[in-house]
Amino acid sequence: MAARKIINDPVHGFINIEHPLIVNIISHPWYQRLRRIHQMALAYLVYPGATHTRLLHSLGAYHLMCQAVNDIKSKGATITKEEDVAVKAAILLHDIGHGPFSHALENVLIPGVNHEELSIQIMHKMNAHLSNELDTAICIFTNQYHKPFLHQLISSQLDVDRMDYLTRDSFFTGVSEGVIGYARILKMLVVHDNQLLVEEKGIYSVEKFLVARRQMYWQVYLHKTVLACERMLVKIIERAREIKAESTSQSLNMFLHHVFNKEAIFELLDEFCRLDDYDVISSIKEWANNKDKVLSVLCKNLLERNLFKCRLQTTPFDEDVIQEKRKKAAQALNISIEEAAYFVFTGEAVNTTYALGDDEHINILFKDETVRDISKVDNPLIHQTLSMPVKKFYICELR
Amino acid sequence: MAARKIINDPVHGFINIEHPLIVNIISHPWYQRLRRIHQMALAYLVYPGATHTRLLHSLGAYHLMCQAVNDIKSKGATITKEEDVAVKAAILLHDIGHGPFSHALENVLIPGVNHEELSIQIMHKMNAHLSNELDTAICIFTNQYHKPFLHQLISSQLDVDRMDYLTRDSFFTGVSEGVIGYARILKMLVVHDNQLLVEEKGIYSVEKFLVARRQMYWQVYLHKTVLACERMLVKIIERAREIKAESTSQSLNMFLHHVFNKEAIFELLDEFCRLDDYDVISSIKEWANNKDKVLSVLCKNLLERNLFKCRLQTTPFDEDVIQEKRKKAAQALNISIEEAAYFVFTGEAVNTTYALGDDEHINILFKDETVRDISKVDNPLIHQTLSMPVKKFYICELR
Amino acid sequence: MAARKIINDPVHGFINIEHPLIVNIISHPWYQRLRRIHQMALAYLVYPGATHTRLLHSLGAYHLMCQAVNDIKSKGATITKEEDVAVKAAILLHDIGHGPFSHALENVLIPGVNHEELSIQIMHKMNAHLSNELDTAICIFTNQYHKPFLHQLISSQLDVDRMDYLTRDSFFTGVSEGVIGYARILKMLVVHDNQLLVEEKGIYSVEKFLVARRQMYWQVYLHKTVLACERMLVKIIERAREIKAESTSQSLNMFLHHVFNKEAIFELLDEFCRLDDYDVISSIKEWANNKDKVLSVLCKNLLERNLFKCRLQTTPFDEDVIQEKRKKAAQALNISIEEAAYFVFTGEAVNTTYALGDDEHINILFKDETVRDISKVDNPLIHQTLSMPVKKFYICELR
Amino acid sequence: MAARKIINDPVHGFINIEHPLIVNIISHPWYQRLRRIHQMALAYLVYPGATHTRLLHSLGAYHLMCQAVNDIKSKGATITKEEDVAVKAAILLHDIGHGPFSHALENVLIPGVNHEELSIQIMHKMNAHLSNELDTAICIFTNQYHKPFLHQLISSQLDVDRMDYLTRDSFFTGVSEGVIGYARILKMLVVHDNQLLVEEKGIYSVEKFLVARRQMYWQVYLHKTVLACERMLVKIIERAREIKAESTSQSLNMFLHHVFNKEAIFELLDEFCRLDDYDVISSIKEWANNKDKVLSVLCKNLLERNLFKCRLQTTPFDEDVIQEKRKKAAQALNISIEEAAYFVFTGEAVNTTYALGDDEHINILFKDETVRDISKVDNPLIHQTLSMPVKKFYICELR
Repeated sequence: MAARKIINDPVHGFINIEHPLIVNIISHPWYQRLRRIHQMALAYLVYPGATHTRLLHSLGAYHLMCQAVNDIKSKGATITKEEDVAVKAAILLHDIGHGPFSHALENVLIPGVNHEELSIQIMHKMNAHLSNELDTAICIFTNQYHKPFLHQLISSQLDVDRMDYLTRDSFFTGVSEGVIGYARILKMLVVHDNQLLVEEKGIYSVEKFLVARRQMYWQVYLHKTVLACERMLVKIIERAREIKAESTSQSLNMFLHHVFNKEAIFELLDEFCRLDDYDVISSIKEWANNKDKVLSVLCKNLLERNLFKCRLQTTPFDEDVIQEKRKKAAQALNISIEEAAYFVFTGEAVNTTYALGDDEHINILFKDETVRDISKVDNPLIHQTLSMPVKKFYICELR
Repeated sequence: MAARKIINDPVHGFINIEHPLIVNIISHPWYQRLRRIHQMALAYLVYPGATHTRLLHSLGAYHLMCQAVNDIKSKGATITKEEDVAVKAAILLHDIGHGPFSHALENVLIPGVNHEELSIQIMHKMNAHLSNELDTAICIFTNQYHKPFLHQLISSQLDVDRMDYLTRDSFFTGVSEGVIGYARILKMLVVHDNQLLVEEKGIYSVEKFLVARRQMYWQVYLHKTVLACERMLVKIIERAREIKAESTSQSLNMFLHHVFNKEAIFELLDEFCRLDDYDVISSIKEWANNKDKVLSVLCKNLLERNLFKCRLQTTPFDEDVIQEKRKKAAQALNISIEEAAYFVFTGEAVNTTYALGDDEHINILFKDETVRDISKVDNPLIHQTLSMPVKKFYICELR
Repeated sequence: MAARKIINDPVHGFINIEHPLIVNIISHPWYQRLRRIHQMALAYLVYPGATHTRLLHSLGAYHLMCQAVNDIKSKGATITKEEDVAVKAAILLHDIGHGPFSHALENVLIPGVNHEELSIQIMHKMNAHLSNELDTAICIFTNQYHKPFLHQLISSQLDVDRMDYLTRDSFFTGVSEGVIGYARILKMLVVHDNQLLVEEKGIYSVEKFLVARRQMYWQVYLHKTVLACERMLVKIIERAREIKAESTSQSLNMFLHHVFNKEAIFELLDEFCRLDDYDVISSIKEWANNKDKVLSVLCKNLLERNLFKCRLQTTPFDEDVIQEKRKKAAQALNISIEEAAYFVFTGEAVNTTYALGDDEHINILFKDETVRDISKVDNPLIHQTLSMPVKKFYICELR
Repeated sequence: MAARKIINDPVHGFINIEHPLIVNIISHPWYQRLRRIHQMALAYLVYPGATHTRLLHSLGAYHLMCQAVNDIKSKGATITKEEDVAVKAAILLHDIGHGPFSHALENVLIPGVNHEELSIQIMHKMNAHLSNELDTAICIFTNQYHKPFLHQLISSQLDVDRMDYLTRDSFFTGVSEGVIGYARILKMLVVHDNQLLVEEKGIYSVEKFLVARRQMYWQVYLHKTVLACERMLVKIIERAREIKAESTSQSLNMFLHHVFNKEAIFELLDEFCRLDDYDVISSIKEWANNKDKVLSVLCKNLLERNLFKCRLQTTPFDEDVIQEKRKKAAQALNISIEEAAYFVFTGEAVNTTYALGDDEHINILFKDETVRDISKVDNPLIHQTLSMPVKKFYICELR
């Protein structure tokens, strides 16, 4: 990879890569691995265009970071050359800890460790490969740097991560409800007392952003069939683990069939970084012929897109109804009632449009220099109701 | 114009014109006049791309009507061939009663008559030209037809008029906040008991639509500088009328310098249909050299884009402050304190995102066949606060 | 206008205005006049979205210039701060000399002077208003500056003027055939021996650009009905002049009814800069009631969009056929055979996709540092045939 | 899958699926398999957005077919209900015979059989599953139907297959040079003597289409790094076969390590339809640790994106130079000179913009009812040079 590079992104156009550190990160095998992890897990079974990868998303977030840094600099924020490249390195690596099918299998494949923790560990290990050039990036990423706004660009209610994934997921799914005016939001960002704020005239763009997020959740991320796909995937992993089904991938076998504590996992990062969506799908293809009926039916159905029927409602499902359905499934498949729980089960999906109680506020800088939360402006769109988590109950069952 | 025609619309793509009545309406000189009326009045002084016309908007609304009719037919609604062409004719003509600079000069150039009343009168007169082929169209337009959903497609909270103008104004201004997923809303429309409803799964698209409307209002239609432009225009007309300044356009003179009652105006439709933006701007170019200082300064400033400074706030402006500013303006321009009121004045701007009390509800058809207002769904975005009109006070003053 | 300004352009997004000289140029009444001149003359009678203005086009070209300057600087070209603002000022003003309906009435309203000559004169006069800050801009514009590539950015086969108008006209007409990948062409520009060249890997983008231009010519600029509209406009001006019809605009009267030599015109720039499309259309509205039948019919037909029928062919039209058609028109309208020539006439339309003989080459810089014309590459798309002007003959006649 | 379905396509918007046969085809496991085959093989290593699948492309082509059928019907072509669904079924299945990485491994994984032959065999087998409802579809697909224009919609210079893939590949790569005005081309199609022709006024759109194709070839499909990726893949398969490396996929092993004649392969369709990109990539992940250095280095390099350096030129490469490079590679990797041929090799890439001699003409229907080839029109863009195949020689070598 040459020192100066232009990458074609269908969403943002040309992405410029200039700094040698950025080039080195992108060239690293662990970063390239993100090409083999779908950004939206199995959502492509519902939105067939949504086959984009974690790599493309993180490149896109990097591109927005370049713009954000330019925009806030032009309004007087001081960002040194070192901070400039560090914050870009950090955003490139923010998702490096994702495993196969990212959120869908998070805490399933490797229980007890989330992707942020893994990202930090992997950054540390890459830092060793890269002569400690990631020191500042890690410091910003873990919010230990003395300029909090740099961390907020990476992780906050209005970070470039969300701006990219909403825009990108909207683009690839074709769901126009998620389109946000990120160019305008970026132009409205401003640094005040080392905090990232939004100028008053940006209020409507931020509202739009929050509403777009709400809509992408209900229409895409928590879409009942997307939910069904992802729960099928979880059930497959659970069953494979239960019956100790061997995968053709040795790396997958290691995490599937052994229990590690956190420290042990952090010693296995090389192994972890060999995992991607291909290990899982190939195993599923193999398991479709497994002699265990539960496993083989789940796998075959996922591959052939015979997906669970899924229903969402605001109240929990009746236990009797569930048992009745399980009985039927057990009979239909000639399996035990316990095994039928793989085919009929319930759960909860939660979404919060804007968390008031959270320490992640969106603060507006008014012309009179006062700072207020966006839910405290005149005639707010973002109100009490939207700031409480919305819980929905779902039931999945064999069709 | 041939019997079959394709028009290129940058917003919707190809617009098909097939029925002879539609061809005849479009060819009519009164319809062609809409080419010379800006859709967004003087907003192009702030958003320079916004030079699109009433004609293009009404063609776009016609196009959406064609889609809407197809979509609801495919779900079982009965629409006869006669009703089909009538509802399309009606939407084409829904804005035919607009005068120069449409809303900006409504009730100013011709006090006491709004554009809907004029549209109806003009339709009646065109009906005579067109062998009464507009009978059903007029019946639908005035909501006297026995299938109210046809009227609702033309005029309601979710009519194709709004869908087109939000999409179009967003496109031409470049303000992405107004982009709506109209294709999806159209697919979610359904007729139930002769009323136009939205299917349950369309809730999020409708929310997006209402939010887009709210945002276009505050960011574009009621943008402080757009407001300033339009108020300047009104002040020019008022001053010209006050000092009986002659326009170079005889048609404009007639409405400028005579007071008519409604009936008299309805006799003058031919004269009214000669008026367009060109009469007003040409007069302003002439009046920029008028010996009356108030008129000439107003006109010159508008032409050269030396616009009023405008400020919006939630409370009324202090009368003393206004008087003080007027005094200064009077001195600066060497005019009387009364005349200074042309250069320093206040007013109110009002917007309602969604009127609950209104008889124009957006009703959702749930899967269990119940019908509820969109503000009554679980976890609504559209809430009490948004359904009350928001009033802001503005002050305009010479810069 | 504040010192820093962002303008919303539907085509390019946000346009940044920063330098005080640029702000002053845009605020100048002569520049604001370009808001009242349609970029594509009467093409909006065929493509109803094409109502954009010369002002928006020149802002867009300015925006592309900002990108081009950045791109070639990043490849090592030296551009001083003074040159930077000068080349941007020059592109902003490149069309300042256009009169009403620009090309359609060029050499008609003011015979013997083209718009470039007027642009230069107006720049000189503005320069006096602006403390000679336009010196370098004028020097670059007139190609007297010692770095020819700066002039080539403004005026050459690959200038930002063409990049903007093709993109913009394509956008507003909805004709996708004109879409060009300008972002990529800009990234491929390079300065070599003070000349503007294109890198080898940009060949296909340049080909696309030339083909898009060819297609916009035949499909839009020389579209038979667009041609008919513009010829009607010319005939109206010619008849008004012939019969000394008074316009309601004194400025228009001056240029309509007096013959000036070039020097005299250059003394009348203030008067010229009062003219815009509004003077012409208002006059046409007035003349639609003129007692001269030729003038009134032409004007009424244009306003009501009863356009000439126009046909294009590769050979001249038969003189007998023309005379026959004129006879019929004379009878139909009860006018003389000479007057009928206003309603039946022929002419020529010419287009060259790429002029080989021209001194305006598109030169490609190959990796081996050689420079060759684009028609001399291997397997060229741009060949002999395309480099010769294509002449078509047209006939216009009353429908 | 319900009887009526809407699929969200980011390229074309909503795709409607209505007929039960279409629903059944899409639900078939062999069709669903196309979700696991990348449309553009490994091009996503160069254009990271290009991760779209064969399934999405064939759905898109189906959508364009629906429009094409509507458009030509509205001009009077007779298409029965049976033909209507047959031609749509045929386009949906036109790529069903593609194996892993489609064109990149065609004739490599299964030598001597191309994907069209496999498509036909698979259609026949699916036909048996579907009560012979595919009879007409197969008849049209194999061009044995008495209305040749139906076959031409599926396979000809202007078929909907090409329209979709150019548009789609352009969309997902972000290469704007490939954007075509397919909506306009579809509106210009016309049936004349049972042949598919283009109306005269569609000439420029067709030119644009051919130029876009030429540009996508050189800029994307034959891009030197895309070529490098695909040749690496071929080398991997060849080496795995040579050294009899076992894949973890039994289906892949079968085709990798056995030689079948055509008839035998047609008996193995079930096995063939288990193959997809996942089998190949999973094997490559495994082989990256193979003890054979040639295989492991090739696999590791591909996974980590250490791609071959590739150069294109118009003349063959010098044999001495190649040998020299191989010697160096052999030393560097400590392998034999024969094995070094896996790391340094040459080949040819060929593209024809428009084949004159081909029996696939694009014929234009002129207003005078004559029919001529597009290269025979006045002032053609498509000329002799473009109609000859362009051969380029490439060299790939280890970086």
